[in-house]
Amino acid sequence: MTYKATNFSEKFALFSEHWSPKIIAQMNDYHFKLVKFQGEFVWHHHSDTDEVFIVLDGEMTIHFKDGDVHIKAGEMFVIPKGVEHKPFAQQECKVMLVEPAGTINTGDAGGEKTAPDGVWI
Amino acid sequence: MTYKATNFSEKFALFSEHWSPKIIAQMNDYHFKLVKFQGEFVWHHHSDTDEVFIVLDGEMTIHFKDGDVHIKAGEMFVIPKGVEHKPFAQQECKVMLVEPAGTINTGDAGGEKTAPDGVWI
Repeated sequence: MTYKATNFSEKFALFSEHWSPKIIAQMNDYHFKLVKFQGEFVWHHHSDTDEVFIVLDGEMTIHFKDGDVHIKAGEMFVIPKGVEHKPFAQQECKVMLVEPAGTINTGDAGGEKTAPDGVWI
Repeated sequence: MTYKATNFSEKFALFSEHWSPKIIAQMNDYHFKLVKFQGEFVWHHHSDTDEVFIVLDGEMTIHFKDGDVHIKAGEMFVIPKGVEHKPFAQQECKVMLVEPAGTINTGDAGGEKTAPDGVWI
């Protein structure tokens, strides 16, 4: 039979809301999630895990307490476990996150930008 | 301070050999590796882990015993743990692999295409 690869553009076309990661693949106990960023997110950290940001389209900045990183399409960055960070995107930016299943987007912070976990597209 | 994102094109420019994955990032106990594929690889499987292929440039096919999957730039596929597979690329294809640290490229099969593990670029 012919298996089908997961196409990022096709998946991004299925949703429009910002800051709400959608799961597209699972590897062992990790999820690969697509998310659209625009504007300011909240300061937060993840106590139990590193978190990978891979920018697929556009560009974004992640603020840290001691600086920042600019990430554009074709680049990735690993946020170390426990490090406070605040994503920001001037214009819409399409990102793939890699993190353990069950990771919540706002980490320890909670609040109105907390997205439901476990949503596959 | 300003942190630097990992740029895939810059990393790919640092090596030319095929079938020899280079580590570019670590998330928890997982490695993100860049590899250039061209030609036929060997049949093999990984007994202990799923394996993620993300195609960044070009296109490739992974043969399975019961079919195959075609993956092009902007697509990904997860090879389930234990499933025999054989990567193939007609022309050079640039890929990012995600798998546990210590995963050997030829899995159970060994042979001359077995690449050294643990090489960072």
